[in-house]
Amino acid sequence: MTGPDVLVLRKGTHGKPVEQYVDAIRDRLPEHTVELARTPAAEREAIQSASFVTGMTLDEELLEFAEELETFACAYAGTGHLPLDELEDRGVTVTNASGVHGPNIGEHVLGAILRFTRRFHVGNRRQRRREWRHYKAYELQGSTVTVVGLGAIGESVCERLEPFGVETIGVRHSPGKGGPTDEVIGFGGKDFQEALARTDYLVLACPLTETTRGLIDHEALTTLDPEAVLINIARGPVVDTDALVTALRGGRIRGASLDVTDPEPLPEDHSLWTFDNVQITPHNAGHTPQYYDRLADIVAENVRRLENSEDEPDPELVNQVRP
Amino acid sequence: MTGPDVLVLRKGTHGKPVEQYVDAIRDRLPEHTVELARTPAAEREAIQSASFVTGMTLDEELLEFAEELETFACAYAGTGHLPLDELEDRGVTVTNASGVHGPNIGEHVLGAILRFTRRFHVGNRRQRRREWRHYKAYELQGSTVTVVGLGAIGESVCERLEPFGVETIGVRHSPGKGGPTDEVIGFGGKDFQEALARTDYLVLACPLTETTRGLIDHEALTTLDPEAVLINIARGPVVDTDALVTALRGGRIRGASLDVTDPEPLPEDHSLWTFDNVQITPHNAGHTPQYYDRLADIVAENVRRLENSEDEPDPELVNQVRP
Repeated sequence: MTGPDVLVLRKGTHGKPVEQYVDAIRDRLPEHTVELARTPAAEREAIQSASFVTGMTLDEELLEFAEELETFACAYAGTGHLPLDELEDRGVTVTNASGVHGPNIGEHVLGAILRFTRRFHVGNRRQRRREWRHYKAYELQGSTVTVVGLGAIGESVCERLEPFGVETIGVRHSPGKGGPTDEVIGFGGKDFQEALARTDYLVLACPLTETTRGLIDHEALTTLDPEAVLINIARGPVVDTDALVTALRGGRIRGASLDVTDPEPLPEDHSLWTFDNVQITPHNAGHTPQYYDRLADIVAENVRRLENSEDEPDPELVNQVRP
Repeated sequence: MTGPDVLVLRKGTHGKPVEQYVDAIRDRLPEHTVELARTPAAEREAIQSASFVTGMTLDEELLEFAEELETFACAYAGTGHLPLDELEDRGVTVTNASGVHGPNIGEHVLGAILRFTRRFHVGNRRQRRREWRHYKAYELQGSTVTVVGLGAIGESVCERLEPFGVETIGVRHSPGKGGPTDEVIGFGGKDFQEALARTDYLVLACPLTETTRGLIDHEALTTLDPEAVLINIARGPVVDTDALVTALRGGRIRGASLDVTDPEPLPEDHSLWTFDNVQITPHNAGHTPQYYDRLADIVAENVRRLENSEDEPDPELVNQVRP
C-alpha cells in the first residue's frame, strides 16, 4: 500500500480553512500527491501508509496508526503539545513552523507600538464623538525598546525598528551570543531590572518556559518606567495578569497591547476588557493569508530534500527540531 | 535701542504653549536674550528693535513696526501665509521649519498603514463588545506603497518603510531627480494612472499646489486598486472629498486615514465621520513634544551662523527660503 507524498491532517488554524494550506502545498509540489484527511476516520485510514504528514497537532491515539511515518511537519512554531517521546521512539523526524510568523507578527508589534506612540485610541474615541480636537502624541524616535526573546519574531521586530531611531535592548538566555539589539542581557538579575527601569516599550516575544512564566510580575511592573507600554505576543502566562490589572488600575503603566492573555480566551467578565489603554487582539498576530504559504514553503522544501537524498538517508531538514 | 537676540511672537501651534518653544530656544542659547511677546501690544513694541524674530506667522500690520528686522524664522514648513513681497522689499531673510516633521509624521504614517494592515479597527470593535473572536489581517510585506511628494516627510516615510519589504513608488514634479523609492514618476499621465492601479497604500505627503489640488479625484479613486488604503497627511484639498465619500460608499477603496480634511475642521454632520474604515485625526500628525525642540535647533543654529559671519554679511542659513 502506497500512501500520498504528503498527508495533511484535517484541523486548520487561526480560523482559516485547512484547504488553503493543502492548495499552497499542491502549488509548490505539482508532481506530488497531496491528500487531505477530512474526517477522523479518514485520518486514521490515510495515516497508515503516509510517510510525510503535516498538521497542527498529532495526538497519541492517531500516532498509533502511523506505521510508515518518517516526518511530521508541525504547523506551529512550538511543539510542546506533541507526543514527543512517542515520536522519538518511532524515529519520526519533527519539523516546526519557526519563522513563518516573522513578517506578520513583526508588523503587528510595530503597529501596536505606533498605536500607543500616536495615541490612536484617543483619536478613535474623539472620532466616535465626531470631535475635531487636538491631542498630544508621543514620539518613538529616541525611545528605548526592550525585546524579550530574540528568536525569529524578536529579530523581525528589531529589523523593523531599525529606521525609527530607537535604543534597543534584547533579553535572551545566552546574552553572550549577542543579537540584533544595541545591548543584549540575560533574564533576571540586576541587568534585567535596570533595563526595565529605562524601557519605553517592552515587547514579549519569548517562548513560555520555566524562566519566562510569570516573568512580568508585580515586581517587574513596579520596576518598569510608568510611561512604558507592554506588548505581549508571546504567551499569556509570561505576564502575571493580576499584577498587570493592578498596575493598570494604579496608572503605573502607560498601556498594554495583548495578543495573548491568561486566561485565554479572555472571559467576557474579565477586567482586562475594561481599560481604555489596553488593546486586546484575539491571538491573531500571526493570522495573515501568507501564513499557509510560508508553511507550505517549508513542507515543499523538505519533501524535495528527502527525495534528493538517496545517498544520505537522513538529510537535515528545514526547521528540524527532532531528533 | 537694542532688542533681544531672539524675539518669539505670541501665537503657538498645535495647542502647545509657545512658552515651551521659548524654553527650548533658551536651552540652546543660554548666553542670549530670548524674549517672548505675550500680547499684541508687546509684540508691536518689541518688534521695533528686533533683528531676529520667530513665530508661526507675521502679518503685514505687525511687519510695519519691524524697523530692524533681518531674519524671520517661520515655525511652519510652508510660508505661503506670510507677506512674502513685503518681506522681500525689506530685505528680510526667511527660514522655514522644513524637516521638523520628519520623525513624527513618519511615525504617524507607518502607524496608519499598519493600523489598516492589521485591521486594528476591527479588533477595537470586537474589544468594545468583549468578543474574543479571530479576524483576518493583511500583510504589508510584498505590498506596493506609493508616496506622493518626496520632501522631508515623504523621505522619512520611505526610510521607515525600508525593512518592511514593500515596493515603493515615489511621485514628484521632477522624476529625473530620482528619490528614495524603487521607482520615481511624475504627476499625472499614464505612469501615474498605472501606479495607482497597483497601489496598496497611497500616502499623500505633497504640498498643496495647482498640480496637487484635487489630485485624488473621482478618476484617480476609480483607477486605484479597490483594496488600497489612502493616507493623507498633506492638505485636505489634495483629495476631492465628495469623490472620496462616493468611493467609500461604493466599497471602491479599503479605507482612508485622514489627518487633514476639506473642509477642515471637519463639521460634526459630515459624512466622513460615519465610516468604520476611515481614521480621522485632527491635523495632529506633527504634534509631539519634540516639535519645538527641533524648531529651536534651527533657530539656535541660525543665530550662531549670523553671529559668526562678520566677514560675510549674509551667511547661508539652515532652511533659508528667501531671498
